[in-house]
Amino acid sequence: MEISRTHLIEDLNSSMEGQDVLFGGWVVDLRKLGKMAFLTVRDVTGMCQVIVKGDSMNLLEGLNRQSVVRISGKVQSSKAKDFDFEISATEIQILAKAEYPLPIDPIGRLESDIDNRLNSRALDMRNQKTASIFKLRSQVLASIRETLIKRKFIEINTPKIIGSASEGGADLFSLDYFGKQGYLAQSPQLYKEQMTIGLERVFEISSFYRAEKSHTGRHLSEFTSVDIEAAMMDYTDVMDVLESIVVDVFKNTAENSKTEQKEIGHEIKVPNSPFERVTYTQALEELGDMDIKLEFGEDLQDSHLRSLGAKHPGFFFLTDWPMNLKPFYI
Amino acid sequence: MEISRTHLIEDLNSSMEGQDVLFGGWVVDLRKLGKMAFLTVRDVTGMCQVIVKGDSMNLLEGLNRQSVVRISGKVQSSKAKDFDFEISATEIQILAKAEYPLPIDPIGRLESDIDNRLNSRALDMRNQKTASIFKLRSQVLASIRETLIKRKFIEINTPKIIGSASEGGADLFSLDYFGKQGYLAQSPQLYKEQMTIGLERVFEISSFYRAEKSHTGRHLSEFTSVDIEAAMMDYTDVMDVLESIVVDVFKNTAENSKTEQKEIGHEIKVPNSPFERVTYTQALEELGDMDIKLEFGEDLQDSHLRSLGAKHPGFFFLTDWPMNLKPFYI
Repeated sequence: MEISRTHLIEDLNSSMEGQDVLFGGWVVDLRKLGKMAFLTVRDVTGMCQVIVKGDSMNLLEGLNRQSVVRISGKVQSSKAKDFDFEISATEIQILAKAEYPLPIDPIGRLESDIDNRLNSRALDMRNQKTASIFKLRSQVLASIRETLIKRKFIEINTPKIIGSASEGGADLFSLDYFGKQGYLAQSPQLYKEQMTIGLERVFEISSFYRAEKSHTGRHLSEFTSVDIEAAMMDYTDVMDVLESIVVDVFKNTAENSKTEQKEIGHEIKVPNSPFERVTYTQALEELGDMDIKLEFGEDLQDSHLRSLGAKHPGFFFLTDWPMNLKPFYI
Repeated sequence: MEISRTHLIEDLNSSMEGQDVLFGGWVVDLRKLGKMAFLTVRDVTGMCQVIVKGDSMNLLEGLNRQSVVRISGKVQSSKAKDFDFEISATEIQILAKAEYPLPIDPIGRLESDIDNRLNSRALDMRNQKTASIFKLRSQVLASIRETLIKRKFIEINTPKIIGSASEGGADLFSLDYFGKQGYLAQSPQLYKEQMTIGLERVFEISSFYRAEKSHTGRHLSEFTSVDIEAAMMDYTDVMDVLESIVVDVFKNTAENSKTEQKEIGHEIKVPNSPFERVTYTQALEELGDMDIKLEFGEDLQDSHLRSLGAKHPGFFFLTDWPMNLKPFYI
């Protein structure tokens, strides 16, 4: 069976009135009203409305929501509120029929709890709130890479199965590597540092592993790490790189994901830049003004950072830490 | 100490004659000729020539090849064969002095054997042949992503520590996951297939793992995989996607890595497209003409593919395999 299409849904528009088109997707919604039916169909690029009437009504036999279909039809203008054109169906092929009833409602009219959603995770991906998070995530990755490549960074892939610990040793996953002890890498640290000696600027975006059974929201045993290393930079250069990554991510996703922002109900606002740079000493003073007394040399706890965050609501850098506390990085 | 620079080396040019500049890098070569010395210095963007003479000669004290330097100087025109401008040094800061003698020659005038190179891998990265391979590799990754994103694919990151085998089970690395048995993923297969149900087109570029102790040049226990999955495509669509990835990689690297191609002594030639599509039946006939007799239904071995490759020197697809042999993919 041919699955080819003449169009993706985003390629369809009202100027194509009268044209025959062939496209595929999932049935988001299906409403039968007497001798007529309205379908909404989604593919990777968007959603459109399909009208079925007359003899074509028998094409709907066995069709239910979330089934996979291929539709032939003619473009015509629409009086619908959400669509300025629609497709008058001449043929509907059901490529795969959805289960009925569905275990969760992927349109999101009925909110399912997280357990049910995870048990039907594939179907949950059809919920456009869920899908939007993955689409945004993909755009974030693309933006980070674009910024770094523009700044002459070279993308590398370092080994994840390693022979010894790269940062301390207690929290590594260990595995049998053909009779030898191997470990899952916590970070590309040692590799990327060595590679800057020849390549000057490198980065890796990949999965890394920490065998920490943690109960905070900031730790995962397996996580996607954005790791960057450069030679010939001081800490102000490093802050510039970080700042441009963050600002570009906000700018790019704000511009390129208007649909996704609508779906998740959140409008992305590009932060002001340059980011404020607050010294450790200044932070202690500000905390003092809030009646939080810390001695010079003490570390800042999450609660202190939250208090500082209230005073500096945007992004900011905390700089000039005492050497004894953080000689290298935070 | 400030490590900031006014310029990257690629920003310098002959039109800047008389301008004061400040840049950093590694000393590729150092030749003293009486009261004068010639340095070549490289950073991530390129290489330039530095002239030292008169009183400045004492700045060279303790300097040797591959040391890390920061140079202040003035741009002037050059009579050198390889450079149309040079920098007359007024100050040379040695940020890190290289060992002497070096364990391998990173300029590549003396070829080191692979064992010595791997023992000094960081220094080997300064060999521009080695560095070029990593730079090309980074461009290949960028090109693949660009092509896929243009075709509406969404980048995903799937779990690498999994609870059960995704494709067969014998060749998995196993590990202890907080008292449970975990495995390293061989591929994102099950995840990506499920994700197409909601996202339609996904890809992942990441490390995957196979516990096969293999002695062919085609298998690694840990490898970077380019994994793509799409709904609503037939095998001709899949070949189109693959073909465009391959052609774009050749086009992009051919255009954007002229220096790297020169370094490795290989000129990238963009393959003709569309790629030829040879059916299994036609392949059997062609092999028959070469006196290699195969029955319909037999698999093609590496030697057969090499023979076919001689007849079809570019890229080609082998299609229409017997169902019993390869019902799904090759």
